[in-house]
Amino acid sequence: MADVSRRGLFGAGAGAVAGVGLAASVGLARPSAQAEAAGVSGQTYSPFGAHQAGVTTPTPAAARLMALDLRAEVDRAALGRLMRVWSTDIAALMAGRPAAGDTLPDMALGGVSLSVLVGLGPRVFELDGLRQRTPVGFQEIPAMRHDRLTDAYSGGDLLLWISADDFTTVAYAARRLVHDAAPWADLRWSQQGSWRGIGKDGQPATGRNLFGQVDGTGNPRGEALDRAVWSEDGWLTGGTQLVVRRIEMDLDEWDRLIRHEQERAIGRDLATGAPLTGGDEQTPLDFAVLRDGEPVIADNAHSRLAHPDHNRGRTMYRRGLNYADDTGSGLIFCAFQSDISKQFIPVQRVLDDFDALNEWTTAVGSAVFVIPPGMREGGYLAQGLLE
Amino acid sequence: MADVSRRGLFGAGAGAVAGVGLAASVGLARPSAQAEAAGVSGQTYSPFGAHQAGVTTPTPAAARLMALDLRAEVDRAALGRLMRVWSTDIAALMAGRPAAGDTLPDMALGGVSLSVLVGLGPRVFELDGLRQRTPVGFQEIPAMRHDRLTDAYSGGDLLLWISADDFTTVAYAARRLVHDAAPWADLRWSQQGSWRGIGKDGQPATGRNLFGQVDGTGNPRGEALDRAVWSEDGWLTGGTQLVVRRIEMDLDEWDRLIRHEQERAIGRDLATGAPLTGGDEQTPLDFAVLRDGEPVIADNAHSRLAHPDHNRGRTMYRRGLNYADDTGSGLIFCAFQSDISKQFIPVQRVLDDFDALNEWTTAVGSAVFVIPPGMREGGYLAQGLLE
Ligand code: HEM
Ligand code: HEM
Repeated sequence: MADVSRRGLFGAGAGAVAGVGLAASVGLARPSAQAEAAGVSGQTYSPFGAHQAGVTTPTPAAARLMALDLRAEVDRAALGRLMRVWSTDIAALMAGRPAAGDTLPDMALGGVSLSVLVGLGPRVFELDGLRQRTPVGFQEIPAMRHDRLTDAYSGGDLLLWISADDFTTVAYAARRLVHDAAPWADLRWSQQGSWRGIGKDGQPATGRNLFGQVDGTGNPRGEALDRAVWSEDGWLTGGTQLVVRRIEMDLDEWDRLIRHEQERAIGRDLATGAPLTGGDEQTPLDFAVLRDGEPVIADNAHSRLAHPDHNRGRTMYRRGLNYADDTGSGLIFCAFQSDISKQFIPVQRVLDDFDALNEWTTAVGSAVFVIPPGMREGGYLAQGLLE
Repeated sequence: MADVSRRGLFGAGAGAVAGVGLAASVGLARPSAQAEAAGVSGQTYSPFGAHQAGVTTPTPAAARLMALDLRAEVDRAALGRLMRVWSTDIAALMAGRPAAGDTLPDMALGGVSLSVLVGLGPRVFELDGLRQRTPVGFQEIPAMRHDRLTDAYSGGDLLLWISADDFTTVAYAARRLVHDAAPWADLRWSQQGSWRGIGKDGQPATGRNLFGQVDGTGNPRGEALDRAVWSEDGWLTGGTQLVVRRIEMDLDEWDRLIRHEQERAIGRDLATGAPLTGGDEQTPLDFAVLRDGEPVIADNAHSRLAHPDHNRGRTMYRRGLNYADDTGSGLIFCAFQSDISKQFIPVQRVLDDFDALNEWTTAVGSAVFVIPPGMREGGYLAQGLLE
């Protein structure tokens, strides 16, 4: 999509090019010169353009997702005021400048891959004047057999998903934005996660979840990614829809499996992420191959059941985060798509019924958000919805 | 100290040199080439030598501290068995190799600045045969007026302090080590923190806590650091003692202060960390300077009260970590010294009585550990104590 690459060029791309230039001239010029050139860390993103940053921009190391609830008295106009405040804050923070009235201005840093992604929960579309504007396919995830949801990580009227190279920057931006929302909204839940998108050789890599699996390989790319993710639905055009599931992983039981059983559950090689049918990480899965009369990629293997070939071509863009804290360990599963009802939900139903992984994974939180498009300079987030 | 620089050369130093070589030859060679050359990220440390890594080695981005309690039946010999198991695990993990029997071998990575620091809590020195071997000055921190301690972050018979460039690596090593300790010890508490030791320009920098203050400036360096930290007390020679205080920071109240009040509380400039008496971050504080008859660095300023000039020359090596989670926000204050009773405790008493910061800070957890020296190749941690 033209706008993606344009934003890429002036956001991520520009940072990377600067990194290369410096590195070439002085040998060692900036932190993470390699990762930066590759666009993983050391970036400066822009909130302006067709899309918000934080959807398809590379996943930096540190992230916090926060859900807020709107006060009972907040109406469409008041929500518009909050969005204007946040938009101004976000434009400043992502550029490395303190927000207006910032009490900790010295903590604002450019080149730390900060992105702040804003989302709108279901209740926003129950406000007067917005009922007719619910995006097509946007809905809560129906109860699944394997769910053990708690309120502590479910629901929410607004989402802030803050990503950066480090947690100090994330905490700083989070505080500012929650503070500035105080007249209209209160924090409902907060969850932190991290991702390592850099491999053994220092090159950008898909990254691993806490089961040790390479996770993200099957994601659509290029035009397929654009088709899967970006909405063309009225005011939401250039925006998308997001499912957030906090999925507890039973690492103790997983540890008891032999390697063969672990690989069988997913249908991929643990070391490389390659399909069990051979090749390397990017080789397509071959579901037809048999060994001793049995499919090499098992009938209940996660990669088979979740694959578009077994889901009428349905795809989504997953961007998970590992968590490990006092509540347990697992994956903050996040998936973008243009239509939750047609993409995530049917795939999730199949997985709930048959997925081998269900033995070691349990959803403990669930939330859905509409992700408005990026803003215009001088405009604000969700302007197309609210004005 | 000769051994410090030697370990430096073969541990951190060697990684850095490799980084420079590669970067010089191919322009952009490894992740974090700058930070790596400067020794912040991308390092490979060794657990062998005079000292354990993780004391004076640079602070990478991600860390977890875990306290474990010994089972009632564990005696000196059993503790020795645990230390042998951990030592073998640690030697493998820090070298980027999976530990023996590792169920997630693909997660072992070299060049991710992994260090695992092991400590021994007070109860270890109540075991038969170890009572006479308590290091001089090792003791619990007496109750302070401002403390609001909870068991959730206090005490512990053993410490694991795992640091690395990313939390996925930290979580992986943490699981392995806790799992392998299971026959002898159970997890008591766990806390995660992070630090950004890289400044706006991409150069290594002191870093900021969540009040926005440059934090770590006053730390001793060079020979003064060696004198402050390393024990010369019998079996502990080359080891040290550690105080861990989880200190909640009241960011909401802090935010209400004007900048002048914030700076007055510490005696330093917020933007640069320089003393209010002028100069840059490294300029010594000048406690004698008056303005309008009042000391420029206030009588109750934290930097004045904690300074060696007002504490009979007492110093310590602070290596804090920011935390921000569901429990709140603050600093995991960590300080190394050769003698807790003569270094941390008297300074803490003065601060408890007079420190301006007390208005916004509250210790909610407290623990002390003896940090054995580094191990010999073929040997194990705390061997000098246990064999
Ligand atoms: C903790 C829970 C989960 C874990 C550990 C997990 C792990 C994985 C792994 C290792 C892969 C293979 C590598 C890759 O293609 O990325 C994969 C693929 C995939 N997963 Fe999951 N997953 C989880 C939950 C889910 C959920 C809830 C959904 C959606 C309902 C989902 C949808 C997919 C899809 C669409 C693929 C790509 C299949 C393909 O096109 O090859 N996963 N997952
Ligand atoms: C959340 C609690 C604390 C905060 C936010 C904090 C912050 C700071 C800051 C900003 C400085 C000045 C910069 C520097 O020299 O590093 C400093 C210095 C110092 N602090 Fe703290 N501190 C805290 C708790 C403590 C505690 C509990 C102790 C020890 C009992 C302590 C001992 C020191 C020492 C020894 C110095 C260096 C003074 C000098 O030599 O100039 N701090 N602290």
